[in-house]
Order: sequence, then C-alpha cells, then structure tokens
Amino acid sequence: MTDLVDRARGALHAQPFSVLLGTELMHVGANELTLCLPVRDELKQQHGFVHGGVIGYLADNALTFAGALVLGPRVVTGEYKINYLRPALGGTLVARAQVIHAGRQQATCQCSVFVMEDGDERLVALAQGTVVRMSDLDEQRSGPTRAA
Amino acid sequence: MTDLVDRARGALHAQPFSVLLGTELMHVGANELTLCLPVRDELKQQHGFVHGGVIGYLADNALTFAGALVLGPRVVTGEYKINYLRPALGGTLVARAQVIHAGRQQATCQCSVFVMEDGDERLVALAQGTVVRMSDLDEQRSGPTRAA
Amino acid sequence: MTDLVDRARGALHAQPFSVLLGTELMHVGANELTLCLPVRDELKQQHGFVHGGVIGYLADNALTFAGALVLGPRVVTGEYKINYLRPALGGTLVARAQVIHAGRQQATCQCSVFVMEDGDERLVALAQGTVVRMSDLDEQRSGPTRAA
Amino acid sequence: MTDLVDRARGALHAQPFSVLLGTELMHVGANELTLCLPVRDELKQQHGFVHGGVIGYLADNALTFAGALVLGPRVVTGEYKINYLRPALGGTLVARAQVIHAGRQQATCQCSVFVMEDGDERLVALAQGTVVRMSDLDEQRSGPTRAA
Repeated sequence: MTDLVDRARGALHAQPFSVLLGTELMHVGANELTLCLPVRDELKQQHGFVHGGVIGYLADNALTFAGALVLGPRVVTGEYKINYLRPALGGTLVARAQVIHAGRQQATCQCSVFVMEDGDERLVALAQGTVVRMSDLDEQRSGPTRAA
Repeated sequence: MTDLVDRARGALHAQPFSVLLGTELMHVGANELTLCLPVRDELKQQHGFVHGGVIGYLADNALTFAGALVLGPRVVTGEYKINYLRPALGGTLVARAQVIHAGRQQATCQCSVFVMEDGDERLVALAQGTVVRMSDLDEQRSGPTRAA
Repeated sequence: MTDLVDRARGALHAQPFSVLLGTELMHVGANELTLCLPVRDELKQQHGFVHGGVIGYLADNALTFAGALVLGPRVVTGEYKINYLRPALGGTLVARAQVIHAGRQQATCQCSVFVMEDGDERLVALAQGTVVRMSDLDEQRSGPTRAA
Repeated sequence: MTDLVDRARGALHAQPFSVLLGTELMHVGANELTLCLPVRDELKQQHGFVHGGVIGYLADNALTFAGALVLGPRVVTGEYKINYLRPALGGTLVARAQVIHAGRQQATCQCSVFVMEDGDERLVALAQGTVVRMSDLDEQRSGPTRAA
C-alpha cells in the first residue's frame, strides 16, 4: 500500500497542472482515493465562488487516479459527467473517488467533491465517469474524426 | 453586439482562475461563443498532454458564457458531460459553445473543444450541459443534502 | 410511509409505458426507492441481452420516483447519464435510486441497476441525473429553441 | 449503401424490444442514421407525455446504430447522457444520430430527438455517448465489480 501511495503521489507531483493548482494526495485505499486542494482566490470565478472548472478538474483527476489503482498508471479519463450541487467559497476541496466496476481496459468510477471548512464538510459536486488505458485511447485518437 | 463582447470579456477577466490559465474571448455570436487558451507546460499532466481538467474547464466555461448570452450574466453551469477524444499536445485550445435550447431559468448547451496548431485544427473533446440562473441554484444550494 | 408507497405505486401504474414493460415498486425509503422489472424476451435486443433502452428506462424512472419523494409528485427527469457495465440476460432487473442533494426545484439523484437471478445479484448499470419540478420544465419547454 | 440500410433494418427488426415499441429505420448516411417511432398511448407516462424512457431508448438505439456504421454490427452503447428539453405529446419521434469521432474500438456519437407532428418539428432531447465494440465490453463485463 505504501508503494501505491508513493506511486500515486509521484504521479500527482509529475502533473504540472496539479502542482500549479496545489493538489495533494490525502488517502489511498484498495479501490478508492482522496485528493485535496486548498481554496485560494486564484481558483475563483467572478462571483467569489471556486471556479466550477477547478471542482471539475479535481473530480476528473480523482477519477483517473482511482482508475489507476486497478488499471495501472497509464490511464486517462475517457469521459465523465458532473453535477454541481453547491458553491464552494473557501476552506479545502476534498474529492473522494471510488472504482465501481473494472475490466482489463477500463473502469467506471464515481467521485464526490466536498468542501471542508472549520470542521464542517459539505458536498459540492457529484461525478461519474470512465477511466481507460492509454493504449486504447491512443489507438482511438489516431482514428478518423468528423467535425461536429 | 459590441456590448455583449465587452460584457463577456469583462466577466472572463473578472475570473481569477481564467486569468491564471490565460483564457481569452475569441468570438461572440447571437447564441454561440468561442473561448481560447494557449497551451503551455504548466497546463499539462505527467504524460505531456494538456491536462483533461484544463480542457474540461474550458468547455465548462464556454458553456456558462454561451448560456449567459440568453439568460443574462448571473449564471453557472449546473451540470455537464464531456467526452475526451484525443490528447492535445501544444498550440491553442479553442472551445466553441452553442445554446441549443433555452427557457427563462436554464439553457442546454453543447461545446466542441479543438486544438489549433500550425493552421491545423483537431477536435479534442465534446461536451453537453445545462446552464442555470444563479438565483435558482442559490435556492437549491441552501436546501438539505445527504452524503453520497 | 404507507401513504408514500401507495402514491408511488399509483403513479407507476398510471404510466402506460411502465405497465407495458411490467415495472413494479419494490421498496420506498425516506429518500430512496427501488423499482423492479422481470426480464422477458420482448425486452431484449438482437444479441440476446436485455436492451440498453430498458435498463436506461428503469434507471430514469427510478431517478424520477426518488426525486418525487422530496419534490412532490409533479416531477420529471431533466437530464441523466448512464454507464452500462455488464449485459443482463435474464432474471429480474432491480433499480435502486437515492436522492443525494435536493433543493426546492430540483434534486440530484444516483441509481444503481442490478440483475437478480438465482439469488445472485450483479450490478449492470450506474446512473446519475437531475429531477426537476414540472412547472419549471413547462416554463423551459415553452422557451425558444434552436436546432442543433 | 443499400447493403448498409438492409443490414441496419435487419438488426433493428431483430431487436424484440424495438419491435414491441414500433421503431423503424428512416435514413442511413455515411456516418449518420435516423430512427423513428410513432407515438401511441402505451408509450406515455402519467401526465400524458411520451415517457422519458422511450425517448432515451430511441436516442440510445440511434447512437448504437450510428456507431455500427463505422465499427461494424457487434456494438453496444457503453455510456450516454441525455438532456430532455420539451415534452412530446403525439406525432412521431425522430432520432438523428451522428458519429463525431471514431477509433477502431469505440466511437463518440451525438443524437438529437425531435417530435414531428402536422409538418412541425420540435427538438425534444439531446444526447451524447460512446459506442463500443462488444468484444471489449464482454471483456470488461467479466471483470471484477464492486457494489456502489
């Protein structure tokens, strides 16, 4: 397990975007993982709330890292959906992702994003998505594409 | 229209997170809007691709700004879904969002995210979501919530 | 609670499509609800699996009925997303939906669809969506719409 | 092209659930396909609208059949998302699906569902999803799964 934690933390710190935002690994379980991100003004939108894009990023990244626990490190989120439930104003964002179903090539995961402030924890978003092995995606990505 | 452009640009520049990332307004139409974001190393993940969270943020933000064209400026994305189609390596991300259906309180929008590099344009993600007036969401957000 | 059960069962039996398929109410809790649907050949697709549209219908309907527990009976599913995890071949489909967050006008719900056969229970799909009060939707639906 | 039409129509008529509902193939293009379904009372819910599950089924099926145009006949919808925009009361449902991006193993597709009545056509739902080759899904489906 220590090895998994070290590997996940290493992968997270190897992401320049996660370093720019300040994301940290909080917890790793058998098929679940928690990321956290302290809120600062730079992460907000014009109404004083944490930007939805920050919450989406954290959910997306937690989904990917959870998927990596069962699929190995070369994975990306192939698709996901998020419902924003409440604005986050301050404190720390905490994203808990869990693998719900896994095959050899992809895993379906869920993620809840909370905001923790003064010992209080409130759910701010709910996400669900598919994590895929990169070889598959590389293959897919080289295929023909038609404009929308 | 100039007024709409100025208002949208003002709202974008009033988002600290969009300023941190470097997002710019490219085009505003009657019910569509284009945002762009030059890729730089800080926006990448550990495999050298633009972080999915950056692409998701840009799609999400373009959805919100498109929704604002028909609902007014006090809106947020209530929910959205994104499919990642190809990795983006460099160049400039371009997100084109369009209002497909609008009522008084919410709008359903679609967004295509492209990467432009050396005159070439490739589709990297496809998103669909709901933009809602904030009064509604504030109301919703103050309601009871049960942990997942 | 008996009243809630009677009301939910009455609403279900007032849906001609649910009667056509054979859906029944299995359980009602404070903010959760279970529907079931015995598999028969008429509900299948060409490979011998239960048609995805049947599983999607059951998840969608369970989301709506769960939302009705907190929003009242005049609700519809406004949007939802589903991941199909495994094929269902026979037995009985069971959809368990739960309200995760609720405001006055809408509720965010999750649903797991299982197939039960010979005492065995396997997860076949995972869904997440928004249930909205009909007054809102009616309003929205009368608004202007642009073709995709 | 005639061959593609015959094959698609044959597959549709080989789906007992599509026969039960009355779905017909309307049009097949290079990477797009249209299904239609005449509304009848049996397909409605308790408020007199076409059941969302019918609209979702039609969108889902159109996505699958569109994906089959580029991936071959052994495909299923792996996941999808739908936004319901307006109620459908009568007439004929028409679902137009299009392949937006395709690899060897999966395709990302969009679908618009309209209701046609008295020469009038109104958009009722918008969907986006992933169609996957069945070999992949079979593999996935035999993998370990954890209950939600």
